[in-house]
Amino acid sequence: MAEQSDFQPFKRLALIGIGLIGSSIALRASRDGLADEIVVYTRRAETLEKARELNLGDVYTDRISEAVAGADCVILCIPVGAFASVGERMSEHLEPGTIVTDVGSVKRSVIDQLLPHIPDGVHLVPGHPIAGTEHSGPESGFPTLFDNRWNLLTPLEGGDEAATERLADFWRALGSQVDIMDPDHHDRVLAVTSHIPHLIAYNIVGTADDLAEVTQKEVIKYSASGFRDFTRIAASDPVMWRDVFLHNKDATLEMLGRFSEDLSALQRAIRHGDGDLLFDHFTRTREIRRGIIDAGQEVAEPNFGRYKTDT
Amino acid sequence: MAEQSDFQPFKRLALIGIGLIGSSIALRASRDGLADEIVVYTRRAETLEKARELNLGDVYTDRISEAVAGADCVILCIPVGAFASVGERMSEHLEPGTIVTDVGSVKRSVIDQLLPHIPDGVHLVPGHPIAGTEHSGPESGFPTLFDNRWNLLTPLEGGDEAATERLADFWRALGSQVDIMDPDHHDRVLAVTSHIPHLIAYNIVGTADDLAEVTQKEVIKYSASGFRDFTRIAASDPVMWRDVFLHNKDATLEMLGRFSEDLSALQRAIRHGDGDLLFDHFTRTREIRRGIIDAGQEVAEPNFGRYKTDT
Repeated sequence: MAEQSDFQPFKRLALIGIGLIGSSIALRASRDGLADEIVVYTRRAETLEKARELNLGDVYTDRISEAVAGADCVILCIPVGAFASVGERMSEHLEPGTIVTDVGSVKRSVIDQLLPHIPDGVHLVPGHPIAGTEHSGPESGFPTLFDNRWNLLTPLEGGDEAATERLADFWRALGSQVDIMDPDHHDRVLAVTSHIPHLIAYNIVGTADDLAEVTQKEVIKYSASGFRDFTRIAASDPVMWRDVFLHNKDATLEMLGRFSEDLSALQRAIRHGDGDLLFDHFTRTREIRRGIIDAGQEVAEPNFGRYKTDT
Repeated sequence: MAEQSDFQPFKRLALIGIGLIGSSIALRASRDGLADEIVVYTRRAETLEKARELNLGDVYTDRISEAVAGADCVILCIPVGAFASVGERMSEHLEPGTIVTDVGSVKRSVIDQLLPHIPDGVHLVPGHPIAGTEHSGPESGFPTLFDNRWNLLTPLEGGDEAATERLADFWRALGSQVDIMDPDHHDRVLAVTSHIPHLIAYNIVGTADDLAEVTQKEVIKYSASGFRDFTRIAASDPVMWRDVFLHNKDATLEMLGRFSEDLSALQRAIRHGDGDLLFDHFTRTREIRRGIIDAGQEVAEPNFGRYKTDT
């Protein structure tokens, strides 16, 4: 899967946070020689020790000053709620010319939290790789996570274009495709494609778990009828997702309003026995999946290719 | 995968309807010798021709009288809305001792539609295999579809126990596990585990498709962030699902009411910045997936095992 890349390695790549995304960056950068030195920072001693066991970097530290000193690229791989605090603590240790970026699922809030702490001459280029699994922690990473996935960079107006281009090259070397997007537009797009789906999944799994008359055992046994698909994203990291909703509040609430209106229309059609409305709606939605498969963002096999079949 | 079975084959197995489920029954029964003769009935000439090309049976007919005559087992593999009409047309051709069963996703309505047309001495034993994919039609079937999936039989009070046992043996020979359940309880359990998840998925895919400011192209490109999981079940057969909602109206509407209440609580937590409520909810839902994996109803690999990883 490794592609040739003419990316000129970072001298010192500092990963602030080493969960699924941070560890996947580390593994790919290490595998393909995209940094001369990889620094792993995390707050918790157990996580740092785990990262060391997994051999994810060259330097391990729980001091952010040590992590960012001398780094030409700093990537914040932490929950969206932690940016202001981390930004404040690292600010005075950032060196001119350094690229500071992140992998947060929300972009406006990240910019608002981080920008006050970015010294002159340091280049803030926010980013969001659209990649992940429902697993979390440093042991969940793998070097091909970003292959053929999109990374959305949301550079600031008047920012350094060379820094943006260098970061884009880095992400391409990690396997991604790169798009540039306005941060507010990003937050609205992701509210639809990611944040609302997660909220809905978390919600339906919670509703099912709450029912007294239908036991949890029944929900589990008969989940292959549809429910289990929702449980995957409802198994995602709770801290990460709490922060996403708190920090993309407006777009999430607006899209949720539209979702609920549309659901009311389907509910009304069921109540009034309007089969034509249901049929038309259900026919239209089939097309979307075909588009996703054609775009290389989904496997074509039935059931996500979950099981080998001998057709 | 074939297991030894001491199931005494049906003499003549009539499949009424030959979509994903009907064709999967045909392929498995044929592979493992579970019927001396398989009769394929379908209304549409193209579908019948397709079934013939796929070599799914021994006899092909578009006359229901011919299909059920002499059959010792008749399985209705048709949308839930078609049972009254098919029941009426086949009634006088059913022979004493025949087992009549089905694979419908709703059980009370199927019983109400079918029972008036079941002659004395014919054994109605409704059933519902919890198995499927988002694909439909006779070309979508495969013989291992039912392996390790549950089939819920909802026999009538006072019905023939030997017929139920024989049908249960047949489904075990097809690869299923079998549970017996009350039809009304079935409809409430499935409303939670299947019907509401499908409605929600259909709805969110529709909402995303409707947004003018977020283009369909964006929804497709960035779907790996969560949305694509929903598109799978929103690609399911529109006729089948229209009929499910129209025929399980009460349970669906009730469960939908609970879902919406719960969603309002999450919405309120987002609006008021109640991170603790969100965190607690998101933590609880993680457990459910573990239960489903442990119960053998889901794969353990991240992302449904969609992609091979080289960790």
